[in-house]
Amino acid sequence: MTRIQATPVQLREAREARSVYRAGLVTPTSGVAHGLVQANLIAVPADWAYDVLLYAQRNPQACPVLEVLDAGATESLLAPGSDLRFDIPQYRVWRDGVLVGEPTDASAAWQEHPDLVSFLIGCSFTFEAGLVDAGIEIRHQTLGRNVPMYRTNRACAPAGRLSGELVVSMRPIPGDRVAEAVQISGRYPAVHGAPVHIGDPAGLGIEDIQAPEFGDAPEIRAGDVPVFWACGVTPQAAIMASKPPFALTHAPGYMFVTDVPDANYLV
Amino acid sequence: MTRIQATPVQLREAREARSVYRAGLVTPTSGVAHGLVQANLIAVPADWAYDVLLYAQRNPQACPVLEVLDAGATESLLAPGSDLRFDIPQYRVWRDGVLVGEPTDASAAWQEHPDLVSFLIGCSFTFEAGLVDAGIEIRHQTLGRNVPMYRTNRACAPAGRLSGELVVSMRPIPGDRVAEAVQISGRYPAVHGAPVHIGDPAGLGIEDIQAPEFGDAPEIRAGDVPVFWACGVTPQAAIMASKPPFALTHAPGYMFVTDVPDANYLV
Repeated sequence: MTRIQATPVQLREAREARSVYRAGLVTPTSGVAHGLVQANLIAVPADWAYDVLLYAQRNPQACPVLEVLDAGATESLLAPGSDLRFDIPQYRVWRDGVLVGEPTDASAAWQEHPDLVSFLIGCSFTFEAGLVDAGIEIRHQTLGRNVPMYRTNRACAPAGRLSGELVVSMRPIPGDRVAEAVQISGRYPAVHGAPVHIGDPAGLGIEDIQAPEFGDAPEIRAGDVPVFWACGVTPQAAIMASKPPFALTHAPGYMFVTDVPDANYLV
Repeated sequence: MTRIQATPVQLREAREARSVYRAGLVTPTSGVAHGLVQANLIAVPADWAYDVLLYAQRNPQACPVLEVLDAGATESLLAPGSDLRFDIPQYRVWRDGVLVGEPTDASAAWQEHPDLVSFLIGCSFTFEAGLVDAGIEIRHQTLGRNVPMYRTNRACAPAGRLSGELVVSMRPIPGDRVAEAVQISGRYPAVHGAPVHIGDPAGLGIEDIQAPEFGDAPEIRAGDVPVFWACGVTPQAAIMASKPPFALTHAPGYMFVTDVPDANYLV
């Protein structure tokens, strides 16, 4: 998959980002290492790995799997030298479907579950780079905020012991750029692809666009249309709904920054 | 995934094909139900399902998963009313990596392993329809033969207990149509996508292009270039190399015909 290599400048930025996150910096990663893939994390004990992989296979737009690490492994092929225990700015620890902690260092999870299987899942920040390059404003980046994410009323296809609703991210886009936003994101089918819904949030069962379940409230300006994409936080909704005994994820918006250029996922 | 529906004529053809295969007709399926997806089958006891799904995830060009059935299930969502025990023209039964039978009815496999998990994997016949529509001759169809398939010297990424080499299918294409063949097949990234190799078979470690491991020998004419695509028979090579106690597959070229139009996999 990785045919197109990162530039030295990109690589330096990605490695420095992972390094400062490892040292403890907590910040959303949207816009970091422009042009390199960022990934969602979900890690579960080996006993649950098939359910997660099958859930991803049955819901590929929300859960495009970029890499599955072997049980217990912590170095991603997408970022040689990385360590998933430390290199994400903030994590979430889930027990029986309940969020019980948001550590900045997740090494305790691997101590507790040496057979933890980590899944790296594509992130909409990949096509954001394409939108930015086309001169389409990514409002939450401009404002220095986290992207707003919402649980919807759309059920994902269940798999084994996992079920849950689709989670979406939303970007307000001026009406004259929406078509381009669709076309550009559609060229990344391996990373959420085209939007799942455009316009009225009620169509997804979202009651209050200003109250996202994850991330920060949006700023929607006159002439903007809300555009909704499938989101890699969807597995976290499945965790809440399905209550596996243990799971570790990234904190929404605080992603794993890889060394792999987005262009590898362009079609 | 199935937004674009089959036409009544296509549906009738697909259902009739499955029905005559169920009744015992043994014939390669290339060209059957033009415009509808055909699929490779690999089915393993539940204990091996994670290895197969992970192998597919790590080798997506060769093993694009279209559907994973629940353990023991035999009706595919891609073809309501179908039954995987009977609806493929010919099967292969593998024990400890050795081909031990080629039945036309596979119901004994589910009797022996009630927890059998079936994987349906994309097939190059999908983009063949696109090539035919563009006026590019599919030689093996013209000749009424099976497509030639070869084991290569390219290792797939291993997963759990599974490892093996990439298997490719080959179509001789006139030099002035090769670029189009690349572009057309490239629009189906979920179904093998663009070729993995064009030209000299030695580049894939293929010694004798006239002696394919699977399918029939090709007819290569003056001006033709051999064009190689990743092939859904790749899991069978992994079975041979990795020797799971039991596996059931289709016989190469004798596919599962679905009700789903190819166009659903176009990007």
